[in-house]
Amino acid sequence: MSQSPVLVAVEVALAYARAILVRHGVPAEAAHTVAEVLLASDMRGIESHGLARLPQYAARLEAGLTDAGAAPSIARQTATTALIDGHNALGPVVASMAMSLAIDKALRHDCGVVSVRGSNHFGIAGYYAAQALPHHLIGLSLTNASPLVVPTHGRERLIGTNPIAVAVPTGDDRPFVLDMATSTVALGKLEVAMRKGEQIPLGWAVDADGQPTTDPVAARQGALLPLGGDALTAGYKGFGLGVLVDLLTGVLAGAQYGRAVVGLFDQQRQSDIGHFFLALNPAAFGDLADFQERARDLLRQIENSERAADTQRIVWAGERERLAMEQARQRGIAYQPAVPDALSALGVRCGLPPLQGSEVADGA
Amino acid sequence: MSQSPVLVAVEVALAYARAILVRHGVPAEAAHTVAEVLLASDMRGIESHGLARLPQYAARLEAGLTDAGAAPSIARQTATTALIDGHNALGPVVASMAMSLAIDKALRHDCGVVSVRGSNHFGIAGYYAAQALPHHLIGLSLTNASPLVVPTHGRERLIGTNPIAVAVPTGDDRPFVLDMATSTVALGKLEVAMRKGEQIPLGWAVDADGQPTTDPVAARQGALLPLGGDALTAGYKGFGLGVLVDLLTGVLAGAQYGRAVVGLFDQQRQSDIGHFFLALNPAAFGDLADFQERARDLLRQIENSERAADTQRIVWAGERERLAMEQARQRGIAYQPAVPDALSALGVRCGLPPLQGSEVADGA
Repeated sequence: MSQSPVLVAVEVALAYARAILVRHGVPAEAAHTVAEVLLASDMRGIESHGLARLPQYAARLEAGLTDAGAAPSIARQTATTALIDGHNALGPVVASMAMSLAIDKALRHDCGVVSVRGSNHFGIAGYYAAQALPHHLIGLSLTNASPLVVPTHGRERLIGTNPIAVAVPTGDDRPFVLDMATSTVALGKLEVAMRKGEQIPLGWAVDADGQPTTDPVAARQGALLPLGGDALTAGYKGFGLGVLVDLLTGVLAGAQYGRAVVGLFDQQRQSDIGHFFLALNPAAFGDLADFQERARDLLRQIENSERAADTQRIVWAGERERLAMEQARQRGIAYQPAVPDALSALGVRCGLPPLQGSEVADGA
Repeated sequence: MSQSPVLVAVEVALAYARAILVRHGVPAEAAHTVAEVLLASDMRGIESHGLARLPQYAARLEAGLTDAGAAPSIARQTATTALIDGHNALGPVVASMAMSLAIDKALRHDCGVVSVRGSNHFGIAGYYAAQALPHHLIGLSLTNASPLVVPTHGRERLIGTNPIAVAVPTGDDRPFVLDMATSTVALGKLEVAMRKGEQIPLGWAVDADGQPTTDPVAARQGALLPLGGDALTAGYKGFGLGVLVDLLTGVLAGAQYGRAVVGLFDQQRQSDIGHFFLALNPAAFGDLADFQERARDLLRQIENSERAADTQRIVWAGERERLAMEQARQRGIAYQPAVPDALSALGVRCGLPPLQGSEVADGA
């Protein structure tokens, strides 16, 4: 079943996604932002949040469920905080503006916190956390999402995969960037196992009765387990983190939360997603260069620590994605053919030529 | 092997611990703070961080490794941030002062962040996060700790169980209080399994070669796994959270970090632990009562969600501890006899009468 990947140059993919969005009524600058955020996911090797999602973005724009032309506004603010109303604009437009505001406040007052309501699916959380890095700030980005995760001892999808992303500047081009769903895995991993006819590990999901399962079909009808799996392996901690994210996003901002959150695949209702962004100035606590040197030293301790037999290299959060980005810049992004096919179909439908990619030779 | 627990009234335990600390040269107010923090752990049912640790606190005071009379000072500060030097005072003394300062800044500027160096083992992280609750603030508390946790694919203890605690006020007496080590379990759980001669679940620990193990003896010679277990169940996320805590505590503050962190059981070196505290004013983002009502609604969704067959009730983070506290206040704290025995031995050694507890009748 597996097909040769198709290589698409970063600039080609970016321009194509931008053009599709513009043809859906999105202003040029906003279209660029959305395309860039989705592409950043593909470049990092996180296919689940990349251009593969553009057809859903487009479908929700076409259905009038997301407002192509809306611009977020500041509903209220203090020196260190703000509440932003996304006015149902595209998530990446709202989120990048909100994180910029948090950064601006942190540059002035060492700490900036921005809460967001009325937004939509925003792609990868790590993109916004990483906005802080060029400013030598620590960045944090949270969002809630539609319910997929079961409480410990429960059987009902109650909260989303509610990600936590934190970026810490290190003074070089190898920052620490943690970007993690608070579930053990994303839904996409169940779908991959279904397609391959493989079992899934215990700790990923429960069936519709809330029982642990290794069957991806049963899991797909059930729910995802929080990070940690079941109670015996402390899944209540992962669930606690997911609830915390919902409290700091939907609940704090006055957006949707819990089982009421509407996701990207819904074709009938507006989303009203909540986000949370924080920027913090490490130089407020001491010399910046010293902080960065200590950070690099800790990360080197990890990288150079003793490995278990027969295991890969040890990496810190963000390294795998950084290496994938380097490769994507050099040779283009390697997509499963279904992704450029779907993009081309969408593009052609709105009057664009087909997307230009090149098939990758075996072993390339 | 299991013996009847011994009940000790909260006020009796508090006064006894305070007296022991005073006899070790700790000023009365500081002694009260330390005793209260340790007791708060026992009241919540978290024996691993309670008065069972007082003999270690005392041993380090006697060895001159912690400074009984030291007072923390503000090394630098801005309107929203501060760096505190603990001057090697007892951890709870430093941490409660630092969190109070974060709260004070948040009450004035909506957000307060305090970084701490030169501190010691501070007991349960949740105690300090919860200091924010009476002020209607959200509180966060982090600390690093001596290395026990292995990186994904590693075999070496590199970071501590580095806990994350967050408290969110709900406007009633049932707040959300997440207080979790970023390892799957604490070391104490391996020791309990060793004593009982039981196997441990996969996902808790690795042996000295970095291989997953169900043998608590092999695990005790190996390392704890981060939340999530091995790579297949996303243990790299738990490890990422643990590294994040180290970056925000030891690294940010200029204290020890990574494998250099000295723990409570060391009898030769000063600790120089790092902490991090944040307080945030939810009222900066909208009406406080509305926020609290939404928070209660989300937590009720969890509590009332459908349960898996044959499972217990579903609780949110902090509920189990709240119920344990209520019970402790009413009937006293139920200790395994070894704990009051060790306290009594310590007390008698510094001239106090033995600790008064009463044995619990079966079924009490």
